[in-house]
Amino acid sequence: MTLQRSGRRLGALAVCAAVTLCALYVTKSTAQNANDRQAPAASNASPIYGITIPAGYRDWRLISINHLAGGKLKQLRAQLGNDIAVKAFRDGTLPFPDGTIIAALHWNEAASEDNDKVLATGFPGADLHSFLAGSAVNAQFMVKDSKKYAATGGWGFADFTNGKPGDEALHRTCFPCHAPAKDRDYVFTRYAPTP
Amino acid sequence: MTLQRSGRRLGALAVCAAVTLCALYVTKSTAQNANDRQAPAASNASPIYGITIPAGYRDWRLISINHLAGGKLKQLRAQLGNDIAVKAFRDGTLPFPDGTIIAALHWNEAASEDNDKVLATGFPGADLHSFLAGSAVNAQFMVKDSKKYAATGGWGFADFTNGKPGDEALHRTCFPCHAPAKDRDYVFTRYAPTP
Repeated sequence: MTLQRSGRRLGALAVCAAVTLCALYVTKSTAQNANDRQAPAASNASPIYGITIPAGYRDWRLISINHLAGGKLKQLRAQLGNDIAVKAFRDGTLPFPDGTIIAALHWNEAASEDNDKVLATGFPGADLHSFLAGSAVNAQFMVKDSKKYAATGGWGFADFTNGKPGDEALHRTCFPCHAPAKDRDYVFTRYAPTP
Repeated sequence: MTLQRSGRRLGALAVCAAVTLCALYVTKSTAQNANDRQAPAASNASPIYGITIPAGYRDWRLISINHLAGGKLKQLRAQLGNDIAVKAFRDGTLPFPDGTIIAALHWNEAASEDNDKVLATGFPGADLHSFLAGSAVNAQFMVKDSKKYAATGGWGFADFTNGKPGDEALHRTCFPCHAPAKDRDYVFTRYAPTP
């Protein structure tokens, strides 16, 4: 199955927040196709979980970053945490305390001709290439509330593209996708060491 | 010239802070070789510029992230800024005000078999792979002080590996490497859009 042919499935699995690997939203057309199949959420909150975009998440502290690649898909991803999240990661607290929010920020990877020229001058023959965080893809959130979200491991999920939440079908895929990380309280991301 | 053969040059150019492309520190052996050729700095401050590691930089806000690749070299990189830096990036202030500090955190990219298994299950045929921030490589800093560092565009530079500053030869390469970004006040990194 090609990446293109699996687009429908990619769209359906695109919500796994802070997963470092899921939530692809390959192209806008994929997201559009998903909307064609099902009415979009009626509010600015995620379906099922009722989560809105947390204020100020762009200012949260860095948990880790990663790179997702396959076929033509290339994304750069950062995971940020609110204060409760960062403390829990640093202390190794499991399960994460109620109030934890993990944000996953995803960008399309963009080549940089300008940077590559500098690299070619500075490091001749090394064939180095720099790939930057380019256009925004989506932002996702995992919110811990052990009572409210008891049916999904204590986590609520939300996926936003251009500030709009994805549909219900998309959000139904979140928890199953995170199931393999059950022994880490359903969180794939690990705290990056401090260089 | 192979990457291995150009190791000496890579080491010499490894200090360009927050550059999104320089500062390679390919392997510990490369760093060790550099130390063999020249005595390490005598203090915990960077040679030439006298910069020590800024307290709490791991908690600073995210400017952007990038990915550097060439041959066997694969790094994931995050640029964080102190409050003055982040405000300047958001406001588009050039030149950056005195007091700006930009931190560049570099990690070796690490494959994740566990994550790739989840991806293979969720997205069959897409051949997706997840690469995480693995072992720490180095941390670098650009500090703006237009008077103190007038000879180098108003910027002081510092490169630390395992908390120890690189040598003087290394730090002599910083400013020339940043010269191509003169029209952006010698800063390569751009502020990533908020997804």
